[in-house]
Amino acid sequence: MAVTPEAIAPFLLAASGRSAGFTPVWFMRQAGRYLPEYRAIRAHHTLLEICGRPDLATEVTLQPVRRLGVDAAILYADILLPLVPMGLKLEFAAGEGPVIGNPVRTLADVEALRRVDVATDLGPVLETVRLVRGQLSGNVALIGFAGAPFTVASYAIEGGPSRSFAATKRFMYGAPQLWERLMGALADVTFRYLEAQVRAGAQAVQVFDSWVGALSAADYQRFVLPHQKSLFRSLSQLDVPTIHFGVGTGHLLELMVEAGGDVVGLDWRTPLDEGWARVGTSRGVQGNLDPTVLFAPEGELRRQVRDVLRRAAGRPGHIFNLGHGILPGTDPDVVRAVVEMVHESTAGSAGT
Amino acid sequence: MAVTPEAIAPFLLAASGRSAGFTPVWFMRQAGRYLPEYRAIRAHHTLLEICGRPDLATEVTLQPVRRLGVDAAILYADILLPLVPMGLKLEFAAGEGPVIGNPVRTLADVEALRRVDVATDLGPVLETVRLVRGQLSGNVALIGFAGAPFTVASYAIEGGPSRSFAATKRFMYGAPQLWERLMGALADVTFRYLEAQVRAGAQAVQVFDSWVGALSAADYQRFVLPHQKSLFRSLSQLDVPTIHFGVGTGHLLELMVEAGGDVVGLDWRTPLDEGWARVGTSRGVQGNLDPTVLFAPEGELRRQVRDVLRRAAGRPGHIFNLGHGILPGTDPDVVRAVVEMVHESTAGSAGT
Repeated sequence: MAVTPEAIAPFLLAASGRSAGFTPVWFMRQAGRYLPEYRAIRAHHTLLEICGRPDLATEVTLQPVRRLGVDAAILYADILLPLVPMGLKLEFAAGEGPVIGNPVRTLADVEALRRVDVATDLGPVLETVRLVRGQLSGNVALIGFAGAPFTVASYAIEGGPSRSFAATKRFMYGAPQLWERLMGALADVTFRYLEAQVRAGAQAVQVFDSWVGALSAADYQRFVLPHQKSLFRSLSQLDVPTIHFGVGTGHLLELMVEAGGDVVGLDWRTPLDEGWARVGTSRGVQGNLDPTVLFAPEGELRRQVRDVLRRAAGRPGHIFNLGHGILPGTDPDVVRAVVEMVHESTAGSAGT
Repeated sequence: MAVTPEAIAPFLLAASGRSAGFTPVWFMRQAGRYLPEYRAIRAHHTLLEICGRPDLATEVTLQPVRRLGVDAAILYADILLPLVPMGLKLEFAAGEGPVIGNPVRTLADVEALRRVDVATDLGPVLETVRLVRGQLSGNVALIGFAGAPFTVASYAIEGGPSRSFAATKRFMYGAPQLWERLMGALADVTFRYLEAQVRAGAQAVQVFDSWVGALSAADYQRFVLPHQKSLFRSLSQLDVPTIHFGVGTGHLLELMVEAGGDVVGLDWRTPLDEGWARVGTSRGVQGNLDPTVLFAPEGELRRQVRDVLRRAAGRPGHIFNLGHGILPGTDPDVVRAVVEMVHESTAGSAGT
C-alpha cells in the first residue's frame, strides 16, 4: 500500500487527541546508560561533548529507535544546556549529576546572566534536530524538549540536584521580584529554544517540570503558574503538540492543566484513569508505568502494563510511557518487549 | 489555680481529638543539627554513640524543649536502630546519611535476620525514654517513634537513601513471598519496640513511613497496607495516641487512614483543609508548614503559618508541625518564634 506523503505519525495523532490505530509508545530517557551502544559512546565522550557534537547526539538519539521500535525519538540533550550560554559553569560529576560552579543566588548573579542567542549558542542542538529528522521514517515522530523555568531555576540556584530545594525556595520567598526576573528570563529562553527546535524539525515538544512537585499548590500558583502559562501560550503558536510533565505532581495536576499542554505527563503515583479524569478528556495523557516495574518478573510486568492500558480504556489521546525516565540497569530487551506488548494489545482497539 | 495530678498535656488532648485550649506544636527533627547545643555534642560523639548513651540522648531530646517551648519532646533516636540487633551493619557517613554494609537482598539475607530482644538490644533507647519522661513537666508530652516497615525495609534493601527505590521495588515485585516475610518481621519488631517505649513512658507514638510515597496506590495496597494495618491494630491496644506520617503521600491518604493512626501527618503538598477532609474529621491531623518556609522573611513566614492555622479552622485535633523535618541551617530563633506565633494566635480560640 502506498503511504501518502501527508501520513501523520501515530504518536502525533495521539498527541493531538486523534485515533492512531494503536497506542503509541516511547520512553523518557530512552537514549541513555541502560543501552550498551550508548555506554560505548560515553566511554569516549562526556555527556556535554555528545550534546555539542551533532553526529554523536544524532547517533545516540537514534539508538533506541532502532533497538526498541518506539513511535517517537526524543532529542538527546540535557535540560540544563541553555544555562551554559547564560554564563553558568555546568559540569557533570561522576554518576552524571550536574554541578554548577557558580550558582545563581544574588541580584548580581541574575544581572550577570547573558541573553542566549539560540541559533548560535545552541546551534549544535538544532543541527542534531535537523540530522535526526532527516533520518527518521515518517512513522516515528521527533520530540524536542526543554526544562521548565522552575526546574531549570532550581538547578541554577541549588548548583545541582536537591532533595529539599531549600536554596530555591529561600530565593523565591526571600526575593520574589528577583525570582520573577529569573523565571521571566528562563521562560523567554525556553520558548525561543523550543521554537528553534520546531523550526529545525521537532514535531512535538515536551516541557519537563520534573521537580515542581516539591512546591505546594499555593506556591505553584504564586511563583510558577504565570510563567508556565505564558510559556505554553507562546508554544501554542508553534502549531505542534505540547506535553507538560512533572514528577510527584499529583497535587498540582489541575494547575498544570491550567498552565497548558495538549498532553499531560503523569507519573506512576496517579492512577492513569483518575489522572485523566482530573486533566479532562479534551487533553491527552502520557504515562505512566513505574520505571522500576521494568525490573519485575515478566508476569508482574505484563500485569502492570495491562493495568495502565485498562485505565486508558483505549481512548484516543493516550501515549504510553513510564512515569519517569528509564533507570540505569534496565534490560533493553524488557523495554522492547513492553513496546511490543503495548502495540499488540492495543492494535485495532476501538478507541485508538 | 491548683493543677490536678491528672492534668493531661495539651499535645495529648489534641492527639486524641479533644480541646487543648490552644493548638499544640512540635517539630519533626526538633533535636538536630540546626541547634548549636546539639552540634556541640555531635562534635565529640557520633550519632550512634548518642543513641546508645541514655545520658547524651536525654540531653539531646530535651534541648529543643528548653529552647523552643514546644508541647512535646520526641525521643532522640534513629529509625534504623532496630536493624542493628537484627544483624545489619549500620553506619552514618559524612552528611549523616545511613549506610548499611550488608543490605538485605536474598532469601539467605532474610533468614539471617535475628529476632530482636527489645529490652536488652534496644535497652539504651528505653532508658532514654525513662530519663526524659522523668525530666519533663506534665505539660510537655513525650512522643516515642519508629520507622514503618516499608521505610525501614527500603533502607535495609537499598543499603542507604534512594531516589528511585529500584532495589526495594525489585525485591517486592520479584520475591513477593520473601517481601511478606521481611515486612512481617519488621512489623513485629516495630510493634514490640513501640510497646516497650510506651511501657518506659512514651505517651504517644509516631510511625514514620517517610518514603512510602514512592509507591503507587495499587502497590501500597498489595505490599504495605496489610502490614501497616496489623501494626496499627496492635498499637491501638497500647492506649496511647498514634500518629501516622509520610512524605509525598497525598495519593495514599485514604489508604493510610485505612491502615490506622489517631492522627495523620500531612506534608506541605496537601493543603491542610483538603487533607483533613480526606482523612475525616474523626481523626486528627498534624502539620504542615513547608520546612523551607523557616528560611523565608518574617512576613512570608507569618503569612504561611496563619494559612495553616486558617485551614485548620481551630478545630480540635490539629497539632501544628512542619510537613517534614527541620532542615540544617534553620535559625532556632525563627523556630521558637513559630511556636509563640501558633500559641498566641490560637490561645482561647473557639474550637481548640
